[in-house]
Amino acid sequence: MNQVKTQKPHDMLAATLSGEMAAVNTLIQTRMASEHAPRIPEVTAHLVEAGGKRLRPMLTLAAARLCGYEGEHHIKLAATVEFIHTATLLHDDVVDESSQRRGRPPANLLWDNKSSVLVGDYLFSRSFQLMVETGSLRVLDILANASATIAEGEVLQMTAASNLATDEAIYLQVVRGKTAALFSAATEVGGVIAGGSAAEVKALYDYGDALGIAFQIADDLLDYQGDSKATGKNVGDDFRERKLTLPVIKAWATASDEERAFWQRTIEKGRQEEGDLDQALALMAKYDTLEATRRDALLWAEKATQALADLPDHPIRHMLHDLAEYVVARLH
Amino acid sequence: MNQVKTQKPHDMLAATLSGEMAAVNTLIQTRMASEHAPRIPEVTAHLVEAGGKRLRPMLTLAAARLCGYEGEHHIKLAATVEFIHTATLLHDDVVDESSQRRGRPPANLLWDNKSSVLVGDYLFSRSFQLMVETGSLRVLDILANASATIAEGEVLQMTAASNLATDEAIYLQVVRGKTAALFSAATEVGGVIAGGSAAEVKALYDYGDALGIAFQIADDLLDYQGDSKATGKNVGDDFRERKLTLPVIKAWATASDEERAFWQRTIEKGRQEEGDLDQALALMAKYDTLEATRRDALLWAEKATQALADLPDHPIRHMLHDLAEYVVARLH
Repeated sequence: MNQVKTQKPHDMLAATLSGEMAAVNTLIQTRMASEHAPRIPEVTAHLVEAGGKRLRPMLTLAAARLCGYEGEHHIKLAATVEFIHTATLLHDDVVDESSQRRGRPPANLLWDNKSSVLVGDYLFSRSFQLMVETGSLRVLDILANASATIAEGEVLQMTAASNLATDEAIYLQVVRGKTAALFSAATEVGGVIAGGSAAEVKALYDYGDALGIAFQIADDLLDYQGDSKATGKNVGDDFRERKLTLPVIKAWATASDEERAFWQRTIEKGRQEEGDLDQALALMAKYDTLEATRRDALLWAEKATQALADLPDHPIRHMLHDLAEYVVARLH
Repeated sequence: MNQVKTQKPHDMLAATLSGEMAAVNTLIQTRMASEHAPRIPEVTAHLVEAGGKRLRPMLTLAAARLCGYEGEHHIKLAATVEFIHTATLLHDDVVDESSQRRGRPPANLLWDNKSSVLVGDYLFSRSFQLMVETGSLRVLDILANASATIAEGEVLQMTAASNLATDEAIYLQVVRGKTAALFSAATEVGGVIAGGSAAEVKALYDYGDALGIAFQIADDLLDYQGDSKATGKNVGDDFRERKLTLPVIKAWATASDEERAFWQRTIEKGRQEEGDLDQALALMAKYDTLEATRRDALLWAEKATQALADLPDHPIRHMLHDLAEYVVARLH
């Protein structure tokens, strides 16, 4: 692990899949347009331009190629996955009062709640049209189930976020909903559209699931130890928003009575004062919960690389392997 | 037309389809539940209990029966259509500040924007799972296209609503999006799942489309002339919310310069004063735009009944005929 690479695995995947990624980008631009409602591309443009890493569509392309696919439907599925992701971000923006996303103001501050909800719905419906075009009922089934897991996870997060009864099992369910369900659907549909074997499709699902969980745990950890320039987020955002994540769940589980009172005041009741973030960080340091969280992320990354064993030996498989290691290599 | 009926056509349909409607209601209850997120049924319960008339699922059942269907998939499609409708209401509640819906507070006042958005997404994903279970790609295609039309219409309405450049053609597009697209999808998928002929499926689409448009025009008209007890809305809500509907579009089209200034101030700029609603009603009376709007609604209802000619002679066809007449019979 952690061997030095000249290129980030994400960039190597992007280079290997550059032709197909260009086709995905063109399809996204085309399908995002609306003849009747020019507001739609206005709202989505800043999300699509900011672009993120386009990690999810790349996973779909990689999975299809890994299973020897030579058709064109994986382009549609990659765009589908990115539309679902963007729609989720838009609806998430309505929901959170997070002030930064990818270093830009969220859509609902640039526009309004109304635009975020309805344009998100539009992107969902566009993704729905794209997946129907593949003509694969199995793909539709996978994406329908993923959509339900995502929506259920978001609702669960809403009720569980500031509730100290939330344990690691519930946290994992939330993480599957908000992140891993779309990762695993992205890889699984790539395998299915390519006609991969049952073992290959399962391996792709398991890889996406574990990668997504590692990715989200890493994200939650970086919220407490990242530098805001690199992550585009402020340290302690989750604490301020009273969002219960693994470092706090672990600290709560071993807290003294006095410490429990601190967490109840700051997270459950939301009565935060100057210096509370420092106190929270001190409690995490006391019980070493950031390191314990990092170890969990490493375990999930390892599960991801192990899942790849059932897939054909192929340069893309090695890149996916490196990607899983890279997701947690940024943690310290 | 307007012949006296002992029973409302809606109630006759409900009685004829009572067994299947009971199955739809059971399915809705079952699929709405969430093991992990108890908030979901809490939020949807008041919508589902209020129940509305369940007009859309009834249309799906009626269309399938009319085409001689003897399977079970129409139950799933009827629940699908109701879930899409409920999800749209929830997202609409985020968007509007309308203070009454079906005589109850909207979900976002009972709960919050967050719950409305996410639970709406959950219902969409549940509807998606249900339609996939029918295994019909054609049904999925119809519902994907309807979803896109609905979302696009909602976005279009957002930009067109307070813009006096909105003409009758744009209004019609908005109406198709917000109402007719789901009506026509509801009837069309009923015919498709029943294996109806191309002519029958087209007739069902045309009926649903025209019925939906008549229904929405009637609704917009009743906003200015209904009694709030019967409609659950206050007279002039659309005016206060600066929502451009047919009675105002027609009044604007023939307005004098002075009258144009009135509409610009009240609708475009939203600077409304005491007495403005009375003035708006006086201008509509001056140009008889409420009567002109009523005639448009009657024309669409007539188109709906004409579309039925291509369908088998069957008691349900007569009920659908009466339903189209009933939708506009309440107008005066």
